[in-house]
Amino acid sequence: MKEFFKVTDLEAVLGYRRSFPQVGWEQISLPEAVGRTLAEDVVADEDLPDFPRTIVDGYAVQGASTFGASEGNPAYLTITGNIAMGQSPEFEIAPGEAARISTGGMVPTGADSVVMIEHTEAIDDTTIEVYRSVAPGQNMIAIGEDIQKHTSVLRKGQTIRPQEAGLLAALGKQQISVYQKPVVGIISTGDEIIPISETPLVGQIRDINTYTLAGLIREAGALAVPYGIVRDDFDMLLEKSRLALDQCHMVLISGGSSVGTRDFTVDVLSSLQDAKILVHGISISPGKPTILAKVKDKSFWGMPGHVVSAMIVFSKVVQPFVAHIGGQSGMEDDVLGLPARLSRNVVSKQGRVDFIRVRLRREGNQIWADPVLGKSGLISTMVNANGLVQIDINTEGLNKGDEVEVIPM
Amino acid sequence: MKEFFKVTDLEAVLGYRRSFPQVGWEQISLPEAVGRTLAEDVVADEDLPDFPRTIVDGYAVQGASTFGASEGNPAYLTITGNIAMGQSPEFEIAPGEAARISTGGMVPTGADSVVMIEHTEAIDDTTIEVYRSVAPGQNMIAIGEDIQKHTSVLRKGQTIRPQEAGLLAALGKQQISVYQKPVVGIISTGDEIIPISETPLVGQIRDINTYTLAGLIREAGALAVPYGIVRDDFDMLLEKSRLALDQCHMVLISGGSSVGTRDFTVDVLSSLQDAKILVHGISISPGKPTILAKVKDKSFWGMPGHVVSAMIVFSKVVQPFVAHIGGQSGMEDDVLGLPARLSRNVVSKQGRVDFIRVRLRREGNQIWADPVLGKSGLISTMVNANGLVQIDINTEGLNKGDEVEVIPM
Repeated sequence: MKEFFKVTDLEAVLGYRRSFPQVGWEQISLPEAVGRTLAEDVVADEDLPDFPRTIVDGYAVQGASTFGASEGNPAYLTITGNIAMGQSPEFEIAPGEAARISTGGMVPTGADSVVMIEHTEAIDDTTIEVYRSVAPGQNMIAIGEDIQKHTSVLRKGQTIRPQEAGLLAALGKQQISVYQKPVVGIISTGDEIIPISETPLVGQIRDINTYTLAGLIREAGALAVPYGIVRDDFDMLLEKSRLALDQCHMVLISGGSSVGTRDFTVDVLSSLQDAKILVHGISISPGKPTILAKVKDKSFWGMPGHVVSAMIVFSKVVQPFVAHIGGQSGMEDDVLGLPARLSRNVVSKQGRVDFIRVRLRREGNQIWADPVLGKSGLISTMVNANGLVQIDINTEGLNKGDEVEVIPM
Repeated sequence: MKEFFKVTDLEAVLGYRRSFPQVGWEQISLPEAVGRTLAEDVVADEDLPDFPRTIVDGYAVQGASTFGASEGNPAYLTITGNIAMGQSPEFEIAPGEAARISTGGMVPTGADSVVMIEHTEAIDDTTIEVYRSVAPGQNMIAIGEDIQKHTSVLRKGQTIRPQEAGLLAALGKQQISVYQKPVVGIISTGDEIIPISETPLVGQIRDINTYTLAGLIREAGALAVPYGIVRDDFDMLLEKSRLALDQCHMVLISGGSSVGTRDFTVDVLSSLQDAKILVHGISISPGKPTILAKVKDKSFWGMPGHVVSAMIVFSKVVQPFVAHIGGQSGMEDDVLGLPARLSRNVVSKQGRVDFIRVRLRREGNQIWADPVLGKSGLISTMVNANGLVQIDINTEGLNKGDEVEVIPM
C-alpha cells in the first residue's frame, strides 16, 4: 500500500494555486455579466451625471434667494419657467427667480439648488412662497458627483454584482470583458459505482460525488463537465484523464477512497507527460487522502472518496484554485465567517486542521453552532449541516460555549 | 400632487405577500436542480446504504475476535477471502476469520466490523496479526445508517444545494419536481431615460435600474424580462403594463421618482381591470415612494426611481414576494446577519425603518461596518457598499461602537 508519508499543510497546498495560469477572457453582453469576473479595469469616459440633476420635485433656485426663509417669514420668488424632463432648459435663473422641476430634471444655469415642493406654496401662476432656506448644492447632484470622468471605477478581478452592472449601464458599457468560466472535468471512479439511472445490485452504490462536485463547481462560477464513471482499470483511467485534461482547465478524479483506486490515480499521474505530483496527502480532516498534481499548466486532483470529505476538500482547497484561475482577486483570504457559540465540545488532533460540520440555530440574540456528528461517508450529515467550523492546526479541540467562526456551506 | 398620506409599515407590506399564489412546478433533470426550490417532499424508497459498507481499507471481522488485542498481545486471524468492489461476497465470516476489504466494499455476513489495515500485519498469505480491538459496527456504515427507507428526507420549499443534489443522486432521482422560476417584468419609465446603447444629450441619462433590478431578480432565483423604456405617456404605459402583466408573474415599473411618473403609475393602475392598490408609500428610508398593487392575482410594483432606493426596496421588500411565489419556505424570517460594530454615528428618524449602506472591514478579530454616505441617486455608493444595516422603527439613530447586524448586499 502506498501511504501518505509526508502530508502537506493546508496553507502550503493553497500556496500552489499561484503556479497555475489564469484562463482567458471573453466579451459578453451586460445582462449576462452579473456574477462574472471583470477581466479589465473599467475607467469612466464621462462624468456621472454629466449635467446637474435635481433629486426632488420642486423649484430650481439660487440658494441665496431663500436665505432666512421660514414659515413666519417666507421668501417670495417669481416662477420664470418649467423644466421638461430629459431636456436642457433654455433659460437661466437669476436672484429671486424659480423654475418648476421634477426629480431627475436638469437644474438650469444660474440655479445652484432645489427647494422641495413641500416647503413651498404657490400664491398664483407666477409667484411662490418658500418656507425654508436651501444651501447651494442642496437637493441636487452636481456634475461628476457620482462618478468623475477618467477615474478608474471598477477593478480587474472584481465580481460583477447588480450594482456594478448598474454602474456599467450608466457608463454605456454594453459589452463587458470578463474571464472565461473555468472548465472543470469530473471523472468518477470505482468498481462499485453505478450511474444514478441504474438500480444498484448488492454491493453497488450510485454515483453521488459527480453531482455534489458539479453543484459546488457551478457555485464557484465554473463549468462542470462530467466524464462518467470509469472502472478501476489503468488504461481506461489514463485515456479518460488525457481526454479531460485536453478539454478542461482542471480535472477532478472522484471516488478513489480505496487503496486500489488511489494507487491507480497515482499510477495514471505518473504516466502522464509533464506531470508532477505536488501534494500527496493534506494535513486536514476530513480530506487527508487528497492528491494534487500539475500536468503541464493544469491542476489534476485525486479527491477523497467519502462524500463529506470530497465536499469539504472542494470548498476549502479546490475552490480557491478555481477562483484563482478564474481571475477572482483577493477576497478569499478575507472571508467573513459568522460568529457563533459552539453548543458542545468537539475534539480535534493537533498537527492537522479539522473541519466540523455544524447547523446554525438562533436563540434570542445568540447564534449557536450545533455540531453535526457522523461518519464522513454519510451524505445526510451534509444535508443537516449549513456551515463549517475550522479548528486550526495548533488547537486541541474546542469547548462548549467557545466562540467560533462559521463558514456557510 | 398626490402625496403619500398614509404610508404602510414594512411588516404590514411584507404580510401582503401571502395573498399572492405560488407559481406552478416543472420537472427538471438533476444536474439542473442546484439552486432551485423543491416542489414536493422527497421520501427515500430505499435504505442508504442498502448493504453494510466499510469506510476503511482493512479486514472484515467479528469484533469479538479482536477483543483484548494490542501491540504486545496481537490477535491472530485467518484470512478466508478477498472482497471484490461492487460485489456481494459469497462467503461468511466466522470467529477467528478475516477477509480483505477496500473502502466502499460490502462487509460479508457474519462480520460486524472492519479492522484498519494500519492496525494489522500480514504474517503470511493466510494469517494476520491484529494490534487493536474493534467494536461491533466500527469502521463501517450499517444498512440505513445514512438514510432509512420510507423516511421523508427533503421538504417541499427547500432550496437544493450541492449536498441535496448528492442525496437525490444517491436515491436515483433523475427528474426533480421544482417550482418554476417566477417571471418578473421590468418596465422602465421617464422622459429623461435612454437605452444604454445611446449617448445621452444634455438632461438625459441612461437606463440603470433595468440592469440593477434584473441582476437582483436573477439572484432571487427568478427570470427577469425587460420591457424597455416607456415615455411618460399614459396610453403607452397602460398598454405595456397590460402586456407585461399578461406575460409575467410580477411586474415592476421602475424609474418613476418624479411626481409625473408616479401619477402615471397610479393612473395606469386605476385603469387596469381587477386592480387594487394595497400600498401607497412605505415607512422606510430610502424607498418611501413605493407602490404595490394587486392586479388579479399578480403583484404590480411602482418602484422608487433613485437607483439606491430601488435596489434596497427590491432586496428588503420585493425579494420576499419573489421567494414566496417561488415556493421558498420559511428561511426569510431567519436571515442571519453578520454582527459588526458601527464605526461612526448614524442618524435615523423614529417612525420609519432606515437602511444604512455599509462597507465591512476587518481589524484583527473585530469586524467594523463603515457607513457609506451619499445621496440615494448615487450608484457609486452601492458599488462601495457590501451590506445593509436596518435601524428599526423605534430607534433614533445608532452610535459609533454599537453592535449591528449586517445583511450582505
